[in-house]
Amino acid sequence: MKKFEELTITTTPIYDGKVIKLQVDDVTLPDGKIAKREIVKHPGAVAIIAITEEGKLVLVEQYRKALERSIIEIPAGKIEAGEEPIVTARRELEEETGYGAKHFTYLQSFATSPGFADEIIHLFVAKDLYQLEQKAALDEDEFVELLEITLEEAQQMVAEERIYDAKTAFAVLWLALQNR
Amino acid sequence: MKKFEELTITTTPIYDGKVIKLQVDDVTLPDGKIAKREIVKHPGAVAIIAITEEGKLVLVEQYRKALERSIIEIPAGKIEAGEEPIVTARRELEEETGYGAKHFTYLQSFATSPGFADEIIHLFVAKDLYQLEQKAALDEDEFVELLEITLEEAQQMVAEERIYDAKTAFAVLWLALQNR
Repeated sequence: MKKFEELTITTTPIYDGKVIKLQVDDVTLPDGKIAKREIVKHPGAVAIIAITEEGKLVLVEQYRKALERSIIEIPAGKIEAGEEPIVTARRELEEETGYGAKHFTYLQSFATSPGFADEIIHLFVAKDLYQLEQKAALDEDEFVELLEITLEEAQQMVAEERIYDAKTAFAVLWLALQNR
Repeated sequence: MKKFEELTITTTPIYDGKVIKLQVDDVTLPDGKIAKREIVKHPGAVAIIAITEEGKLVLVEQYRKALERSIIEIPAGKIEAGEEPIVTARRELEEETGYGAKHFTYLQSFATSPGFADEIIHLFVAKDLYQLEQKAALDEDEFVELLEITLEEAQQMVAEERIYDAKTAFAVLWLALQNR
């Protein structure tokens, strides 16, 4: 996993924000030449494929400033410092949907944009959902709307690009494979 | 698609690089409060699910500095200014694999990291591949190794996290659905 390794010569920090950091690395390429790599540092995230008793997928609609539109996504959120991904997953499901889950299983992880960012999303499957008596509070800058839809409705939302992000596109294929 | 819209008050440019730009927006939230949004601007990319006559998936291994490791991905690349995604897709397939394709079809698009970036990946399926007489040149800072593997081998690579990015994880599920 070090094939074509690029060794760091210098790292220049550019920005240190609330969610991300940006740095530019000068690196030595496998042929000895030098190149620049622009790298966004992100704490990592979790996302939850939550399935109701009727086999519906639990989704949330929210505004994504980077895209200047709202999209419909599986519940997800950033990992807090030192937090186990499974803990983040339970918290985010509760905060965004008001659901707890009796069965939480780890599915797989993936990098979202390996060309310029280190963000990893850890995916979990939540089943045997139950409504929390008191819904957990969202972050104060978070506004989301809950949806519960069938596989067919989710596929229609992909076609209409209302579902329009990688983790949710993955979740819809995953659900289609389960239902075969 | 404007539900919970966040209106821009000010945009502060932070960095303008070779691949990405970074800006911080002050926005008005739906409840009237103000928040900061850190936004990475990216030109967008294409990725190609290329299937050989034997039904194998064409992949490339490359070093990803952001992850500090090499991973195995479907061929992909950045869209040049003014370029149609289908043109980028044909070019990147040729450069990274030495294959042309008689049949190129658009599959779907998705945002990779909508929480902090505007990057969209446009996915294409390439079939009826043919070897180019002369392989197109890679970018001078690009080093890739070609692989052609079965669905079962790809699923094993997902389990071993050698396949470890969102677009390729999606491609493996897509191929599994085709093969059912």
